[in-house]
Amino acid sequence: MAQKFGVNDLRGVVAVTPTPALPGAGELAGRDTVDLEETDRMIRRLIADGVDGIITNGTLGEMATLTLTEWQAFTRRVSEVVSEVAPDLPLFIGATTLNTRDTVDRIRFLEDLGIQGVFLGRPMWGGLGADTMAAFYRDIADTFPDMAIVLYDNPEAFKGPIPSPVYAELATLPQVIGAKYIALTPKFAVDIAAVDGKMRLLPLESDWLATRTLYPDEALGCWSSSALCGPEPVLALRDALASGNLDAARHLTHRIDWTYEPFLARTNFPEFSKYNVTLEKLRFDEAGYINAGPARPPFLTAPEAYAEGARENGRRWRHLVDEITTTN
Amino acid sequence: MAQKFGVNDLRGVVAVTPTPALPGAGELAGRDTVDLEETDRMIRRLIADGVDGIITNGTLGEMATLTLTEWQAFTRRVSEVVSEVAPDLPLFIGATTLNTRDTVDRIRFLEDLGIQGVFLGRPMWGGLGADTMAAFYRDIADTFPDMAIVLYDNPEAFKGPIPSPVYAELATLPQVIGAKYIALTPKFAVDIAAVDGKMRLLPLESDWLATRTLYPDEALGCWSSSALCGPEPVLALRDALASGNLDAARHLTHRIDWTYEPFLARTNFPEFSKYNVTLEKLRFDEAGYINAGPARPPFLTAPEAYAEGARENGRRWRHLVDEITTTN
Amino acid sequence: MAQKFGVNDLRGVVAVTPTPALPGAGELAGRDTVDLEETDRMIRRLIADGVDGIITNGTLGEMATLTLTEWQAFTRRVSEVVSEVAPDLPLFIGATTLNTRDTVDRIRFLEDLGIQGVFLGRPMWGGLGADTMAAFYRDIADTFPDMAIVLYDNPEAFKGPIPSPVYAELATLPQVIGAKYIALTPKFAVDIAAVDGKMRLLPLESDWLATRTLYPDEALGCWSSSALCGPEPVLALRDALASGNLDAARHLTHRIDWTYEPFLARTNFPEFSKYNVTLEKLRFDEAGYINAGPARPPFLTAPEAYAEGARENGRRWRHLVDEITTTN
Amino acid sequence: MAQKFGVNDLRGVVAVTPTPALPGAGELAGRDTVDLEETDRMIRRLIADGVDGIITNGTLGEMATLTLTEWQAFTRRVSEVVSEVAPDLPLFIGATTLNTRDTVDRIRFLEDLGIQGVFLGRPMWGGLGADTMAAFYRDIADTFPDMAIVLYDNPEAFKGPIPSPVYAELATLPQVIGAKYIALTPKFAVDIAAVDGKMRLLPLESDWLATRTLYPDEALGCWSSSALCGPEPVLALRDALASGNLDAARHLTHRIDWTYEPFLARTNFPEFSKYNVTLEKLRFDEAGYINAGPARPPFLTAPEAYAEGARENGRRWRHLVDEITTTN
Repeated sequence: MAQKFGVNDLRGVVAVTPTPALPGAGELAGRDTVDLEETDRMIRRLIADGVDGIITNGTLGEMATLTLTEWQAFTRRVSEVVSEVAPDLPLFIGATTLNTRDTVDRIRFLEDLGIQGVFLGRPMWGGLGADTMAAFYRDIADTFPDMAIVLYDNPEAFKGPIPSPVYAELATLPQVIGAKYIALTPKFAVDIAAVDGKMRLLPLESDWLATRTLYPDEALGCWSSSALCGPEPVLALRDALASGNLDAARHLTHRIDWTYEPFLARTNFPEFSKYNVTLEKLRFDEAGYINAGPARPPFLTAPEAYAEGARENGRRWRHLVDEITTTN
Repeated sequence: MAQKFGVNDLRGVVAVTPTPALPGAGELAGRDTVDLEETDRMIRRLIADGVDGIITNGTLGEMATLTLTEWQAFTRRVSEVVSEVAPDLPLFIGATTLNTRDTVDRIRFLEDLGIQGVFLGRPMWGGLGADTMAAFYRDIADTFPDMAIVLYDNPEAFKGPIPSPVYAELATLPQVIGAKYIALTPKFAVDIAAVDGKMRLLPLESDWLATRTLYPDEALGCWSSSALCGPEPVLALRDALASGNLDAARHLTHRIDWTYEPFLARTNFPEFSKYNVTLEKLRFDEAGYINAGPARPPFLTAPEAYAEGARENGRRWRHLVDEITTTN
Repeated sequence: MAQKFGVNDLRGVVAVTPTPALPGAGELAGRDTVDLEETDRMIRRLIADGVDGIITNGTLGEMATLTLTEWQAFTRRVSEVVSEVAPDLPLFIGATTLNTRDTVDRIRFLEDLGIQGVFLGRPMWGGLGADTMAAFYRDIADTFPDMAIVLYDNPEAFKGPIPSPVYAELATLPQVIGAKYIALTPKFAVDIAAVDGKMRLLPLESDWLATRTLYPDEALGCWSSSALCGPEPVLALRDALASGNLDAARHLTHRIDWTYEPFLARTNFPEFSKYNVTLEKLRFDEAGYINAGPARPPFLTAPEAYAEGARENGRRWRHLVDEITTTN
Repeated sequence: MAQKFGVNDLRGVVAVTPTPALPGAGELAGRDTVDLEETDRMIRRLIADGVDGIITNGTLGEMATLTLTEWQAFTRRVSEVVSEVAPDLPLFIGATTLNTRDTVDRIRFLEDLGIQGVFLGRPMWGGLGADTMAAFYRDIADTFPDMAIVLYDNPEAFKGPIPSPVYAELATLPQVIGAKYIALTPKFAVDIAAVDGKMRLLPLESDWLATRTLYPDEALGCWSSSALCGPEPVLALRDALASGNLDAARHLTHRIDWTYEPFLARTNFPEFSKYNVTLEKLRFDEAGYINAGPARPPFLTAPEAYAEGARENGRRWRHLVDEITTTN
């Protein structure tokens, strides 16, 4: 089996999904808490609505809080649905753990399911030195020569960004096809130069217009967890960018920024990172595109002001979806 | 089965152990890499030499890099040895994972082995808010009412210290009997006041004299990973403190500080945290009291200057052991 | 005298200048070290070449290292030249000191010279709380009701960014017309919303295209210290943006990014901030548009790798100037 | 004039003073705001009560917020009083500014007054690299070969601690006789080794017992700003340490820690640093030993919870003074 996904398969809107939870998933005694029916529905709906790729099991996808069994059950169901309805869809399942060998076992499981893409952060108990970080990803690529890897670059979760020289080194590996990039900062220009077209750096959807303007040949895709509040605004942005409709792209970006105004992720990312799972699920449920269900332990509560900001983000996004679907 | 260990059982020298590794443990394909014979020997030797408690599976004990099977095998062997030779020894097995439920399963395993103490850091994918942090420990204590808990307070691993109000709250739980405290800073005085004698804050052995001087009724124990280079200096310090021999205690503390001079843990703790496992094992092996073996993936390398500093620390500690055993 | 400059006067290319130094300015015994002739030439040249505004005496303009007498001499000369050749040019002289009253005295001096714009960071011995920060600027605005203020938002110098709520509050003051903004990050979108068109947030020239694309009605100007290596590339960028020539703007932005590749300011801003003055002057002198002269004490040295990166930036910028002037 | 003060003159209780302010000192229009009578009284009282040294014009001594004229007036008066009543008292006047040359001018002024000691932080607009930092102090020592220098090591004000290698280098200069050390952390042991007895590292009074226990030949002095709430507790601690009365020293340390419990300086030093001047003056005035008067702009307000914590610290300290003077 050859490597299926390359840098050119990473384009358009890549949705970043939660792992839907059954009622009671917040209980310590809860086991097998994945809502598999909702998982099934979520994946089908995203694909039917036209997203171009799917990433699962990052922070908000509760890689950290799922049991192994739950992760396997979720992954199996996602795999089945995608195989059935969109077998060529770029799909990247999260496999981040506390160490290399557990991650190898996770990827082996994915491989056995026929999955050909992995979404991979690094062990985060201790921060990794640049040398260790590069070796970690190199070891995974060597072990799974046909598995496409999307890097997970989250400086809060993994105790620092991926340094630009590590980007340059990893870009030489054919398996490493892209990265979920945290935010547009001056480092983005350095990293774009470092990867030299060999890796797709995916910005957040609200950064997409800016990066596309700067790098029209490279910024061909974005990631979006807000797509799980309804993908229409991001898909419309994609189409506006593709057709060169700058006014429309700008308008959509501004409306998306408006939805983020009350959301802690935008105003204080380090603080947000402490309540990520809870707040993401709250906004998803408020928007109503999916039923994300409760967060799993230990993420049981969040300060009410943060929670209300998340819900308001969900309401604004739903409002934006209505604007777009009414207009079109 | 009632709670066996209370705050008063946490005293003297609490050794913090690595998980000895077989040759090849650094390989990605390695499995079942625990050197059980060396584990057996290590625990027996520590007990025979007179340590007052044992903590396992923290950072240097490779909680993060062991597979579940390996952790179980190590834990089972440790439990067997302690049951045989020192059944009342305060023993605290590490059970930190990425979430509450996995930690519950780990502690259940310990409980089934008859182990009555756990060494517990918090999930570290995201930092935890103070409310989440307190609830996490409370939930564990509620689930295991007879299990004694020693908190693992490592601000690098867990993205911040345990806030003083959380100390105050956790001290009210009978299960939470102590904490492995990172270092003597002004916060120590605040935390000692916060726990109000209901929890033992264990300083590092080189901070013990200072804390004992300030809090003679409370600073009755210390933690020491250097004890795995040979416990004699720390045991001698314990005895000097117990007998009120201030000059001897001071001399020993200075000699211990001398061993740390070249060690990155002392000069740059955040940077050290990136290479913790590798460097700790290097110094243990250089000292020769145990055979720690290779670090497990991804911690395969360290800059040579750091490595040499660790080895020099090991050599100095061994020299100090010789000084003490020759003198006595 | 009414307030001369408002938000709409802050547009185009705002050059950020050093304070040219005579030989020997690096000596502790040096006094009156301002190269007034070069100051005169620098200001005339910038104006003749077409910059749209000038900011002086920030970090690289050595507000921190000039004596009061030198700052007065430099300021007087700048004022004279501008009065003579471009009396309506938006000119903002730095007046940041360690406290409010010294800054009041500095601004009084500017007022007496007929200067109508000030470039103002906040006292930085201790960081300022948000309340103190807002009150500081409000007090200055109240004291000088006709003086236009451009905020200096440098999170390294002033121990944190200007919080978004402070932006919102200061935007209500007619005197506060803009800010030298450090870099495009997610916070920029929050701050643009906060100031609501009442203040101009000036991005760095390499961020201008992106911000202009996102905010075509608001991102009407940029700041540039590289303009002191020769303003032509930034002026060409301005003209490309004004005429809607996106391809040209993109090309220029990429070429400007290329000049920054070896420069520490781009790759490690916190570390750069320790050597800012030295490195900026090195690149200016290497580019040759002005003669910046030596940095003043204590900024006497920089690691050679940093220095060479700065010089290479200067050489690349000069090369870029040649490209542009040859093409046009 | 030979160097008057050496490392051995830095011992006992070194009081760290504010700069008393007249009513109205908080006004922007205020000038000549130093309360010279209270300055006179404060210095005489400290000396009469038996402090062993005096440091002025650090953070709480408002080096940052005094005008040059005010600093000169304060300094002149302090010099006169000390010359009159205790001409050999180790006295260290703050001379920290934004650059080397301004600091040279300040020290020249001190020299002309006959003052022989300076308390010196480094320029803090940008952080200084280790090389620049060492060169800065070396240049000052070379320029004033007979002036004793006490380093001001405040990592919040000066953007990082003095690195241990810089301590080692500066300790070789005879002029650099000591440092006001921020707090007891593991770095203290490294720095004590680095200075090798050639420089006195002064801990805070509440760290004195611990450092004295560890380094009986070196930890011969402490600094104390709380001494300005009444020096008796610190003097009693000094005497207890000198006489080897460990129980008394411990009791006093605990009581001092008790006074700090509500004080932000102890619970959150970075946040405290934003309100340092205001909070220190509040507690001084509440304790009533001196009349510190209002803080100078921009430090006009502090959140009420912080302010009340400062006042409560002052009340507790006064209570402690009563305990001691009643007991004795």
